[in-house]
Amino acid sequence: MKLYSYWRSTAAYRVRAALAFKGIDFEHVIVNLVKDGGEQHGAAFRNVNPQGRVPVLVDGDAVIGQSLAIIEYLEERFPVPALLPKAPADRAFARQIALAVACDMHPLNNLSVLNYLSGHLGAEESARRDWYHHWVREGFNAIEALLKTRAAEGPFCLGKDLTVADVFLVPQVYNARRFEVPLDAWRRITAIEAQCLDLDVFQRARPEAQPDAP
Amino acid sequence: MKLYSYWRSTAAYRVRAALAFKGIDFEHVIVNLVKDGGEQHGAAFRNVNPQGRVPVLVDGDAVIGQSLAIIEYLEERFPVPALLPKAPADRAFARQIALAVACDMHPLNNLSVLNYLSGHLGAEESARRDWYHHWVREGFNAIEALLKTRAAEGPFCLGKDLTVADVFLVPQVYNARRFEVPLDAWRRITAIEAQCLDLDVFQRARPEAQPDAP
Repeated sequence: MKLYSYWRSTAAYRVRAALAFKGIDFEHVIVNLVKDGGEQHGAAFRNVNPQGRVPVLVDGDAVIGQSLAIIEYLEERFPVPALLPKAPADRAFARQIALAVACDMHPLNNLSVLNYLSGHLGAEESARRDWYHHWVREGFNAIEALLKTRAAEGPFCLGKDLTVADVFLVPQVYNARRFEVPLDAWRRITAIEAQCLDLDVFQRARPEAQPDAP
Repeated sequence: MKLYSYWRSTAAYRVRAALAFKGIDFEHVIVNLVKDGGEQHGAAFRNVNPQGRVPVLVDGDAVIGQSLAIIEYLEERFPVPALLPKAPADRAFARQIALAVACDMHPLNNLSVLNYLSGHLGAEESARRDWYHHWVREGFNAIEALLKTRAAEGPFCLGKDLTVADVFLVPQVYNARRFEVPLDAWRRITAIEAQCLDLDVFQRARPEAQPDAP
């Protein structure tokens, strides 16, 4: 298997965590998202993924973009250890949290969006920062409230087992730290992050451990 | 089953299409997203979904937000007729297209984002329109190219069977039409939309057929 990845991409971080959790060996293919305006926009990579986005997983003939599509694929192909719980309502809850990150937080804080804000709308650095913080606050407020609809069993989002919810949540917290969002208000989220970062899975998947990290 | 829905929400439209395709009866609960600043922000609805977003599906004890989480739940609970193909690579491709809509198009063109652009960044109507059109163009260019990586079997995204890819694509095209985006460049996408709109599934799920449509 090959994974097209960039160390700081939080979407790639999710997939790296899933691969590490399932103990799947893979070859890293680095796509530098910032060098020369971004290798993801080049013709070579557009042939791999017309969306021009990492991550992409290549497994034989299958070429898959979108982190959740990749992780669902891995889950079906390597069901053990599982990243989705067994009970239907729990599976839905885990996916709901993953999608709250993937749909309602990350897309708004993407590099391409931040560039549009400054390039087309003339937003100053401080307005970009406010934008970023605003969507993180909205997103984490909602996820913290969602997590509190369930008994605080911990240590992970759904209780004693790591799931796809944690795999999406932890990279988003990494990104919020990078952009200096104060995290004190979200005690459940930061407690889950701390537990996850203690695991070998996240130590191997985190940005600073990647071959292309500076 | 109860579905919290609003006629013009494209995320609710996806779930309505999935329910219609699977022939599942449900009770409509209308959440008016525009009246009095939006019923989704009220305490009553926040108790149902802390994210303050439709759609939400309630099935016994399960209360599920996020359209794709709902559809995966329905797929597991009512596997026939299926919205996901059988082959792993095809399942991944269908999910990739669904997520290209759900993550890379819809979140940027949401009401809350358009309101932020005018309220916080002082964007004029024309700048909001350019923003909207920009992300639709980026998204549909990529999806059109993705669809062309496969032989044009049609009539649907993955060939002869309707999948979750179509269920996400058609509502996004509806939304692009609403905001007057010229669609001529995306022949594969518009051909798929035309085929889908011929189906009873989409005739029942489309915004204008909903009880709260004006």
